[in-house]
Amino acid sequence: MIDRATLAARDAADPLAPFRDRFTLPEGVIYLDGNSLGALPRATPERVAQVVTQEWGTSLIRAWNAHGWIDLAQRVGEKIGRLIGAAPGSTIVADSTSINLFKLLGAALAARPGRHTILTETGNFPTDLYVADGLTRLLGRGHQVRAVDDPVVALDDDVAVLMLTHVNYRTGAMHDMASISRAAHAVGALVLWDLSHSVGAVPLALAADGADLAVGCGYKFLNGGPGAPAFLSVSPALQADLRLPITGWLGHAAPFDFAPDFRPAGGVAAAVVGTPPVLSLAALEVGVDLMLEAPMPALREKSLRLGESFLALMDALPGFVPITPRDTTRASQVAFRHPDGYAIMQALIARGVIGDFRAPDILRFGLAPLYLRHVEVWDAVAALRDIMRSGAWQDAAFQHRQAVT
Amino acid sequence: MIDRATLAARDAADPLAPFRDRFTLPEGVIYLDGNSLGALPRATPERVAQVVTQEWGTSLIRAWNAHGWIDLAQRVGEKIGRLIGAAPGSTIVADSTSINLFKLLGAALAARPGRHTILTETGNFPTDLYVADGLTRLLGRGHQVRAVDDPVVALDDDVAVLMLTHVNYRTGAMHDMASISRAAHAVGALVLWDLSHSVGAVPLALAADGADLAVGCGYKFLNGGPGAPAFLSVSPALQADLRLPITGWLGHAAPFDFAPDFRPAGGVAAAVVGTPPVLSLAALEVGVDLMLEAPMPALREKSLRLGESFLALMDALPGFVPITPRDTTRASQVAFRHPDGYAIMQALIARGVIGDFRAPDILRFGLAPLYLRHVEVWDAVAALRDIMRSGAWQDAAFQHRQAVT
Repeated sequence: MIDRATLAARDAADPLAPFRDRFTLPEGVIYLDGNSLGALPRATPERVAQVVTQEWGTSLIRAWNAHGWIDLAQRVGEKIGRLIGAAPGSTIVADSTSINLFKLLGAALAARPGRHTILTETGNFPTDLYVADGLTRLLGRGHQVRAVDDPVVALDDDVAVLMLTHVNYRTGAMHDMASISRAAHAVGALVLWDLSHSVGAVPLALAADGADLAVGCGYKFLNGGPGAPAFLSVSPALQADLRLPITGWLGHAAPFDFAPDFRPAGGVAAAVVGTPPVLSLAALEVGVDLMLEAPMPALREKSLRLGESFLALMDALPGFVPITPRDTTRASQVAFRHPDGYAIMQALIARGVIGDFRAPDILRFGLAPLYLRHVEVWDAVAALRDIMRSGAWQDAAFQHRQAVT
Repeated sequence: MIDRATLAARDAADPLAPFRDRFTLPEGVIYLDGNSLGALPRATPERVAQVVTQEWGTSLIRAWNAHGWIDLAQRVGEKIGRLIGAAPGSTIVADSTSINLFKLLGAALAARPGRHTILTETGNFPTDLYVADGLTRLLGRGHQVRAVDDPVVALDDDVAVLMLTHVNYRTGAMHDMASISRAAHAVGALVLWDLSHSVGAVPLALAADGADLAVGCGYKFLNGGPGAPAFLSVSPALQADLRLPITGWLGHAAPFDFAPDFRPAGGVAAAVVGTPPVLSLAALEVGVDLMLEAPMPALREKSLRLGESFLALMDALPGFVPITPRDTTRASQVAFRHPDGYAIMQALIARGVIGDFRAPDILRFGLAPLYLRHVEVWDAVAALRDIMRSGAWQDAAFQHRQAVT
C-alpha cells in the first residue's frame, strides 16, 4: 500500500530533490510531459540572453571564435557523448533527429554494400520509418524497410542495419542494447539506436554495449528547449570510412578554404553539414550541463520508483490498461490505454496535470526524475480519480468519439 | 569627388536612417560583415526571453498550440515569401541552407527523370557544390554536377536543374533571375536559386521571374541571429508532385496521428522534416519583421549608393583590385583582391572596421543598408588608408605568407 505520506517521506530523503530548484516550473502544474518537451532550467534564460546580447550583439561575427561558437556543436556533442557512454570523439550535435537518422542510415547502407534491408520494429517512432522509407525510395536500388514485431528473430545476412528506438515512445519499454547489438553483429549488420526517449532518462553505455550508430533528441529529458538541436554518434570503428549522404560546408575539413571539392572533416565532425542554430544550441548546453551534474544511478533509481508508484496507484482505477513494463525494462514513462483517453487527458490537462495523448487511446506520462516529486505522482493519480468519479470528461469524450468516427 | 561632408548630408537625408536605432551595434565598430552575420535587432533579446521564460517556461508543451509554435515555420516562411516575391504558400522555414538544398535538388532530379546533369557555376558557394556532389554520389545513377563559367551557354536537354547562387558570395555580382530562368525553361530544365546573399539585400521577384525552387539563409541580411534556420521555396506548379528525398514526421499531413506510412503535408509544408529550433526561429522572425517594415526600393537605392562610394574611394588606394561590378548587377557588398588581404583585414578588424577575408586574397565588405551609415564607408576606407600608410600590417602579412607557403 502506497499513501501520500510515504511518498512525501521519499521526497524528504531524495538526494535529487535539490535539482528541482534548478528548474522553473509553473505554479499549479504537475508536469508529466518532460518526455515530449523538458522543463526550463533556471540558468537557461540568462545564458540565452548572454548569447544574444553579449555574444551576438557585441562581438557580432567575431563571436564565432571569441565565444567558441565554431566548436559548440562538438563541445555539446562531447558532453552528450558522456551521457550516452559513447567513446570520446564519437558524438556531435547537428540538425534534427530526423535529418541525423537520414545521414546515418545513408552511411550504414554505404558501409554494407550488397545488403538491402533496413530492419526495424513495428511501432517504431513514425519519423524513423518515414526517413528510412524516404531514403530507400530515393536510392531506388532495391533496398527495403522491414518492420516486424520481433526484429532480432528476423535478422539475416541481407540486413544492412537494424534500426531501433531504444525506448518505445508509447509504452516506455526499453530494449537490451548489448544483446541486440551482439545479435545484429552476428549476422554482419550494423545497429542504429534512436535514443530520443533514453538520453537523460536511463543509463546508457553505447561503447560497452556495441552500438554502431545513434541519434537522439535534445528537447526531451535533456531539457534543451523546444526544437533543440539533435545529436548523432558514430562508433570509432566506423568513423574512418564514414560515407555521409549529405555533405555541407561546415563538415568540410577546412570550411574556410572554400575549396570546390568536399574533403570531410575527421570522424563525426563531417556530419555537421550546415551552420548550427547557435541560440538553440546554447540553450541545449545548459540542459546537458545540468544533466551531467546528476548521478545517473540516483536518477534511474528515482525514475523506477516514480513509475512503480504510478503503476501501483493506477491499478486501483478501473478502465485503464497499463502498457508499460513493470520490471526494469521500463524506462522513464508510464502509459495506459483507455477508450476515452483523449477526453480524459484533456480534463487532466485542464486541472494542471500535464501528460499527453497518443492516438488512438494512449495516455502517456513522462517521469523526469530531475524535477518531479514523488508526491506529484500521488496528486496526479488523485486528480485522475476525481475526474473519473465526477464524469465531467464524458461530454468531451462523446464529442471526440463523434469527431473521429 | 566624394568627401565626408557629402556622405554626412546623405545620412541626414536618408529615409532609412531611423532603422539604425532598431539595432544594437557596439560602440567603436563599423560593421561591414552583415552579409556573414547580420546585426542584432533591438527587439530580439526581449522576444527571445519571452519565448524562453513565458512560452517554454510557463506553457511548457502546451506552447506548441497556445503560442503558435506549431505554425511558426510556416508563418515566418510566408513572411520571407513576401520578401522574395514568391507566390503565397510557397515558402517555409526549415533546417539549414545546405539541408534545404539537398531536399530541393533531390526533388528537382525526381521531377526531371531521364536527365542527369545538375548544372552550376564555377565559383558557386562551396556548400552548394558539396551538397550536389554528395547527392549525385548517393544516387549512383550517373548524375553529374557540371560547374562551368557560363552555365547559360552550357544548358542542354540533359540538364535537370540549373543551380545558381543569385548573388556571388565573393564578388557580389548578381545574376539576372528572369532571363536565366527563361533560358533554363527553354531546354526543359528547372532552376534553383540560392538566395543567401540576396534576401533582404536586393529586390527579388521569384514568381514573376519564373524561379522554380529557392533556398536561402536567415542569418545574413535577415538579421535572424547566428545559425538562424534557413528557408526554402517551391513554385506552386511544382508543389503537387513534389517528391522530397527526406521525409520526416513534421512534414506528414497529420503528424499527430503517428501513422506508420508517410503521407506528405500539402505543398512546401512537407519539407519541414523534423522539429524546428523554436528559439532560433523566434529570433529569425524579429529580423524578418523588421525587414518587412523597410521599403525595398529605398534599401536598394541606399545599398547601391554605399557600394558606389566604397568603390570610388578605394580607387584612390593602390594595390586593391575591385572584383565587384560597378553597375546595377552589383548586390549589397563590395570586394577587393590584395595579395596581403588576410593581414590587412586583421589590421582593419583590430581597428573596429569589421569586414571579412575570403581565401586566397579577397577583402569583402557587406553593406547592410538597414543599419549602415554613408559616413561609415568614408571612415572605413580612411582607416584602411591609415593602415596602408603606417605599414603596421606588414609584420602580420609576412607571418601569414610564411604560414601558408
